[in-house]
Amino acid sequence: MLRTLATASSVWGPRVAGKVRTMASYQLLVAPPEALLKPLSVPNRLLLGPGPSNLTPRVLAASGLQIIGHMHKEMFQVMDEIKQGIQYVFQTKNPLTLAISGSGHCALEAALINLLEPGDSFLVGANGIWGQRAVDIGERIGAHVHPMIKDPGYHYTLQEVEEGLAQHKPVLLFLTHGESSSGVLQPLDGYGELCHRYNCLLLVDSVASLGGSPIYMDQQGIDVLYSGAQKVLNAPPGTSPISFSDKARNKIYSRKTKPFSFSLDIKYLANLWGCDDKPRIYHHTTPIIGLYSLREALALMVEQGLENSWRRHREVVAYLHGRLHELGLQLFVKDAALRLPTVTTVAAPAGYDWRDIVNYVMDHFDIEITGGLGPSMGKVLRIGLMGCNATRENVDRVTEALREALQRCPKNKL
Amino acid sequence: MLRTLATASSVWGPRVAGKVRTMASYQLLVAPPEALLKPLSVPNRLLLGPGPSNLTPRVLAASGLQIIGHMHKEMFQVMDEIKQGIQYVFQTKNPLTLAISGSGHCALEAALINLLEPGDSFLVGANGIWGQRAVDIGERIGAHVHPMIKDPGYHYTLQEVEEGLAQHKPVLLFLTHGESSSGVLQPLDGYGELCHRYNCLLLVDSVASLGGSPIYMDQQGIDVLYSGAQKVLNAPPGTSPISFSDKARNKIYSRKTKPFSFSLDIKYLANLWGCDDKPRIYHHTTPIIGLYSLREALALMVEQGLENSWRRHREVVAYLHGRLHELGLQLFVKDAALRLPTVTTVAAPAGYDWRDIVNYVMDHFDIEITGGLGPSMGKVLRIGLMGCNATRENVDRVTEALREALQRCPKNKL
Ligand SMILES: Cc1ncc(COP(=O)(O)O)c(C=O)c1O
Ligand SMILES: Cc1ncc(COP(=O)(O)O)c(C=O)c1O
Repeated sequence: MLRTLATASSVWGPRVAGKVRTMASYQLLVAPPEALLKPLSVPNRLLLGPGPSNLTPRVLAASGLQIIGHMHKEMFQVMDEIKQGIQYVFQTKNPLTLAISGSGHCALEAALINLLEPGDSFLVGANGIWGQRAVDIGERIGAHVHPMIKDPGYHYTLQEVEEGLAQHKPVLLFLTHGESSSGVLQPLDGYGELCHRYNCLLLVDSVASLGGSPIYMDQQGIDVLYSGAQKVLNAPPGTSPISFSDKARNKIYSRKTKPFSFSLDIKYLANLWGCDDKPRIYHHTTPIIGLYSLREALALMVEQGLENSWRRHREVVAYLHGRLHELGLQLFVKDAALRLPTVTTVAAPAGYDWRDIVNYVMDHFDIEITGGLGPSMGKVLRIGLMGCNATRENVDRVTEALREALQRCPKNKL
Repeated sequence: MLRTLATASSVWGPRVAGKVRTMASYQLLVAPPEALLKPLSVPNRLLLGPGPSNLTPRVLAASGLQIIGHMHKEMFQVMDEIKQGIQYVFQTKNPLTLAISGSGHCALEAALINLLEPGDSFLVGANGIWGQRAVDIGERIGAHVHPMIKDPGYHYTLQEVEEGLAQHKPVLLFLTHGESSSGVLQPLDGYGELCHRYNCLLLVDSVASLGGSPIYMDQQGIDVLYSGAQKVLNAPPGTSPISFSDKARNKIYSRKTKPFSFSLDIKYLANLWGCDDKPRIYHHTTPIIGLYSLREALALMVEQGLENSWRRHREVVAYLHGRLHELGLQLFVKDAALRLPTVTTVAAPAGYDWRDIVNYVMDHFDIEITGGLGPSMGKVLRIGLMGCNATRENVDRVTEALREALQRCPKNKL
């Protein structure tokens, strides 16, 4: 039966067989851990950090359902509905639209691993941690990565991007729409057109902005757009919407090399998600509960209407800005037009250790806010108002907590 | 602020700015999809295929909980408990033990991407689809892959493995403990020792066998072991236990190249899971609901006791074998000692189209059983009895359904 091994050799003797212990000689040497004899208990938290945000009741209900098989026709129906939901929230007609089984990073990796081949030139807007991550992944793949490094709090102008395109002739440009580590909203009008003039594809991260700030994938000429489930959509982390334009699709389907990952190989995922003409075949077991939740999260966005969601986020964050001003706090992003509505960065208040403030708000109010991340670490506090968490009530709660924290936390302790 | 771009060039003019459409000119061109205006509804199914299996009530309850932050101390506590639970079910003391945020394939990919460097020799037991997948991933990474191809239904003897080790001098051998596409249980006693004599590491897939059939990672000298959540553990797909011996850890930490994947880079995951001495830093947003569920699934295994779980699977599958025999059906795996208790392969009954039988059982009884997969396609029916689904009652239900299907489905229609 063994087809590649040449001949059964005679090096085998009782020596090896004699060394093999029989099953009976094994015992359970690792005892049942005590901690697992207690039931799971988790606290109730208001999640006003940069994500995840709280689940809505409807998503919670979906998350608690019994599963069906990943290849059942009802599951394909759920997946088809998710696809339509993503096309709506992305404002795209791309047939190659699906949800990655993984977090936002997996979606970024899926984009890069499928679009880039070793030696490709890759231009990266690196004005915060997400660009840094794109650089890291691009380098692992063997692309020639050209980071345009900027301090956190700034964006990329069309002029700067054109300079990068002209200089590096990249096949792909990465930009972060909602730079959640710095609080910057990157404008996107004109960038797609510009890239295409230079034969470059445009990849945009909308993990922290989707549903909170306008994005029009097709009209803005974005070639690959991805997001996450755990921000404005209020679904649990673990699934990530992604969509590819025909240009991007063509680049993938004319690759010379296979992508390094099987799990994230878009050709298999496209088939599994019914984006090609072939019958769907098993690739991996999809996160069924995550997909139920994502379906309901998208349904809520459809019911509500994208424009209403955008408006609500804009209004609530304006209210937050006012309350922060009353507390004497400064916004980190100077240009009002470039402030991300979903995640607000507050300049770390002088004289305080930002950790004390974050901990105070958590310990006394069960509210999560966070410090900075990557290049913004130590420079900011971050307050997220996403999806069902974007309400005036929550603004009142978090600013009240902040007011108290500023009174009670040690000042000028050094 | 832009630090890598040389000078602001003067190629910019009103030409570009003039081409940029303002936001106001965009409209919602993709309408809200009708299908998402209806609520989610999913049928009730008894999942007796090769996985996923049904969730237990306790796992369902965990899955329906509100989330907390992925970096909250209570979440780290949940992760620590998961680690201990995995150490127990794997019977290992390896500190480098954690759950991958992804399906079984991601865990396989994590193992290969971290252990193999381009050019490494990799020996693969390919007696079904899982070995084929290991071959595929190994080749993408640029390893020299040596598949030992066998027909489905057969296993690898120590002798065959030694021959492969001697011939190919691999750094890594892949074996599937529970070959769920063929129904074979690969013996593991002595394989670790043998590999180590040849300076090779042993990687074992226990996705379909863990908790259903004895495995003793440390005593059997297994260097990397991984499993899935959605089989005997009865948790939703999307998290996958994995553990690395010190030998495997050393190979990873002395790599010359970075692994191709950032998401699956074990050094980052080890830190996130508290497996090194450094403070945990954010790597990706973990699937919080999946981790709640996995924690509860492991707690149930701890409460029940591994040996009791193994015994129950053995007893229930023996009962299934008897009932199948009464129906005149043949088991696909000839050697009784090599039959996997969790997934039983039945030789596809002569004269029938296997699809008719599978569909009949689904349509009339809401029970999932499946056909073959990869090399076993067309050759078998597969019946899974895993975790809470492994009961005599379920055996009665599925064999009754099969009996009726064999009566009603068209015979010799060709
Ligand atoms: C803008 C942005 N991109 C990417 C990510 C990464 O997503 P994940 O943590 O789900 O991997 C995040 C997460 O916070 C984000 O805010
Ligand atoms: C033995 C075995 N290995 C690997 C896998 C792949 O796991 P997943 O589908 O979760 O990626 C499976 C899934 O059925 C399996 O049975």
